[in-house]
Amino acid sequence: MTRTLAALAALSLASPAAATPPPMTLEQRAEAALETDGYAYSFVEGLTTEVGPRQAGTEAEARAREWAAAWLRNSGFKNVAIEPFMMETWVPGDIARARVTAPFAQDLVVLPLGNSAATPVGGIEAEVVFFRTVDDLRAAPQGSLAGKIAYISHQMRPAQDGSHYGFAGPVRWVGPGIAASKGAIGVVIKSIGTDHHRNPHTGGTSFPQGVAAIPAGALSLPDAENLERMFERAGNRPLTLKLEMNPRQIGQMQSGNVVGEIPGSNPNLPPVLLACHIDSWWNAPGAFDDGAGCAIITAAAIHAGRGQQPLRTIRVLFAGAEETGLWGSKAYSDAHIDEAIAVGIESDFGADRVWRFDSNFRESNPALHKKIAAAVARFGVSSGTDLAGGGADLNIVRDQKGALIDLQQDGTRYFDLHHTPDDTLDKIDIVQLRQNVAVWTQVVGILANEGNSILTGGPIPSAPAIMQGK
Amino acid sequence: MTRTLAALAALSLASPAAATPPPMTLEQRAEAALETDGYAYSFVEGLTTEVGPRQAGTEAEARAREWAAAWLRNSGFKNVAIEPFMMETWVPGDIARARVTAPFAQDLVVLPLGNSAATPVGGIEAEVVFFRTVDDLRAAPQGSLAGKIAYISHQMRPAQDGSHYGFAGPVRWVGPGIAASKGAIGVVIKSIGTDHHRNPHTGGTSFPQGVAAIPAGALSLPDAENLERMFERAGNRPLTLKLEMNPRQIGQMQSGNVVGEIPGSNPNLPPVLLACHIDSWWNAPGAFDDGAGCAIITAAAIHAGRGQQPLRTIRVLFAGAEETGLWGSKAYSDAHIDEAIAVGIESDFGADRVWRFDSNFRESNPALHKKIAAAVARFGVSSGTDLAGGGADLNIVRDQKGALIDLQQDGTRYFDLHHTPDDTLDKIDIVQLRQNVAVWTQVVGILANEGNSILTGGPIPSAPAIMQGK
Repeated sequence: MTRTLAALAALSLASPAAATPPPMTLEQRAEAALETDGYAYSFVEGLTTEVGPRQAGTEAEARAREWAAAWLRNSGFKNVAIEPFMMETWVPGDIARARVTAPFAQDLVVLPLGNSAATPVGGIEAEVVFFRTVDDLRAAPQGSLAGKIAYISHQMRPAQDGSHYGFAGPVRWVGPGIAASKGAIGVVIKSIGTDHHRNPHTGGTSFPQGVAAIPAGALSLPDAENLERMFERAGNRPLTLKLEMNPRQIGQMQSGNVVGEIPGSNPNLPPVLLACHIDSWWNAPGAFDDGAGCAIITAAAIHAGRGQQPLRTIRVLFAGAEETGLWGSKAYSDAHIDEAIAVGIESDFGADRVWRFDSNFRESNPALHKKIAAAVARFGVSSGTDLAGGGADLNIVRDQKGALIDLQQDGTRYFDLHHTPDDTLDKIDIVQLRQNVAVWTQVVGILANEGNSILTGGPIPSAPAIMQGK
Repeated sequence: MTRTLAALAALSLASPAAATPPPMTLEQRAEAALETDGYAYSFVEGLTTEVGPRQAGTEAEARAREWAAAWLRNSGFKNVAIEPFMMETWVPGDIARARVTAPFAQDLVVLPLGNSAATPVGGIEAEVVFFRTVDDLRAAPQGSLAGKIAYISHQMRPAQDGSHYGFAGPVRWVGPGIAASKGAIGVVIKSIGTDHHRNPHTGGTSFPQGVAAIPAGALSLPDAENLERMFERAGNRPLTLKLEMNPRQIGQMQSGNVVGEIPGSNPNLPPVLLACHIDSWWNAPGAFDDGAGCAIITAAAIHAGRGQQPLRTIRVLFAGAEETGLWGSKAYSDAHIDEAIAVGIESDFGADRVWRFDSNFRESNPALHKKIAAAVARFGVSSGTDLAGGGADLNIVRDQKGALIDLQQDGTRYFDLHHTPDDTLDKIDIVQLRQNVAVWTQVVGILANEGNSILTGGPIPSAPAIMQGK
């Protein structure tokens, strides 16, 4: 398989030369990517094999930046740079144990949530209070959890649009903080995920101002379901849990963004910005989240920019430290806010097929919206009417009130893998990965050759209107 | 879901009373089990929830025995007993770490194999030698692994009959011993399994006479594949691994078998023996392996024995310490070899549907073989021509050269779960579980009401012929 892909990649690399008389059209390049792209798989294979998990602020993330920058240079990108920034850093430690001690003694698989506090050495042991939803927890009286461990459940289901993350996510995002504010000494949640493997889904949580962080962990879904069965079988007997974890905040550490460009023929035109994030949680090799995203945008930049030079520069941004608080996205916007971006697109939802295209210029620039919609329809992508909001790493475009496109991926499998050790290369379906590359090649190629304002269809102002309000 | 099942179980329990005029036929009881059995699911749910992992020789296995004995008594079984025995015991310790240190630093998920030695505290670090098959390892010159860690791969595929376990299994069974005999200081294998989750498949290994045990671990399949990609990318650079594990042999510990009976009306007839094993590996809750097996045989004994008393006693045997060396099977045979068994059947291959029936009396007692084959055909079970060998816990029947039946289950999913943390209740498909119970009910009901010798069809000798040679 690996050998076949290497051969295909070689073929892809060779084709520009072979195809010079005449150059392939954008449509032909997108079609070719659909059948034979080897760049994207090669990127995500390399990143997961040679680096693997790459938590923000660690030496592994630094290695990932170096690896990615080298890959971009080797693939012909120009102006490749690492832009470092400092950020508050949390690390997970190396102890994460949970054991029900009564009435049914059994170990449970747990991992800490980002920003979790440590337990004392030797752990804490306390009665567990079961909340079926985060709203049930909200309804608990102040002080009612004093000395207790809260367990918070949810009913998350797989969905093409990933919408259940919005329903279940608050259990992780705010549940621990609410439990702490009501006196809990620890909290475990049912992992925010949709699989049935013994691998917890970690992810960030936060504690309100004035509420001290407490130990907060995620149980794997089978363990959470087992705990709920124990509650049912325990009847009125208290259920007690022993929890030990040693994560910690280690202060300001260095992270960084990686950028690279396929230069356009008109340097006066704002660039097209393609974003992803390079970091992953310490427990996750990050094939889906977000090695695949970086792979897709990079492969698309190559295909869209080859054969004939694009009008606009195509810039890729591999943001650092996305998982722990969008630090790279903020740092990039802070550093570059005065440099207008024509349009931003992000890939950060796995490697399954793109099924819908949305923009935020459907009304302001209907001709361009329709042109893109028509071009991607042949890849099975429908045109949506949602207002594109862009991905996490596109702060700069939102801050500039610029043009945004969302290429919505099928998220049915995404929350089986999100933030877990199971987020490995084998989960990548190369057929769907290539469909992403094809759609992105088509979209990026159109945008990079658009001479007018993406957002309005009018001429580009010499000092872009989007900058005036700053 | 749980509540529905409880309701169904209650319904099942209630039906004998409701059905007294007239009693249900065996066929009706098997049909009813197919639709509504609640015993089997309730058993495996209880065992995995209230006990969970239950490694041979540990307090958890002792709790599992007590739990199972109580369950049998509460369900109307007679002569319920725990029969203790002593056994050499290995425990896994609480440290299992592997990390590639060069050329691509990355942690790998590892667990020790049964009978693995410990590393020194702090671990060992050495170059890894890659063997694509156990035969490649066999071909390595003596002494060629001195100071090295061996990695052994295989190509195991899912199969309905589980036959690839026979092809790949030697990597675990004998690979570490061969590597040790050639000087290796440690060994890691690609897990003997067919899934792609970050949960290693443990299982027993052994070292030849005169070869000291070395640290031997299983990598999860995604980690093993990643390691192989690293080898490909490393080229001529040595790949080094750091391995730390602290399993140990703790000498003679107590295990035990659990037995219970549905008494037959003729105590002079040898009983029908239904077997499974109650232990699991420390890392595996043992829903498929072998909670489901004990659940299936127990539910079938209840259904086959209810309504009208069977001619023969139906005895269930939950063997202890199967995983670590069939200790319970041997102990049971040693203790009871003089008590003739009419026929033995075991369930120890998960909870998916039965698809084939084999016996070892197809030629010696064709009428009975055909009668059973005809009776199970309506559940989608075909009649095979293999000579039934019985399961691991049927040593007594093999030692007595008695009658054996194999009810072959669909093993396509089995090696996704076998000996892993993922062997949890949610993997049980209740529709297929009930098909097992229905088939078993039918088969056990026929056997328990057979007045002649199962093996030959002739009259039962007063001192069974099978005992004469002892």
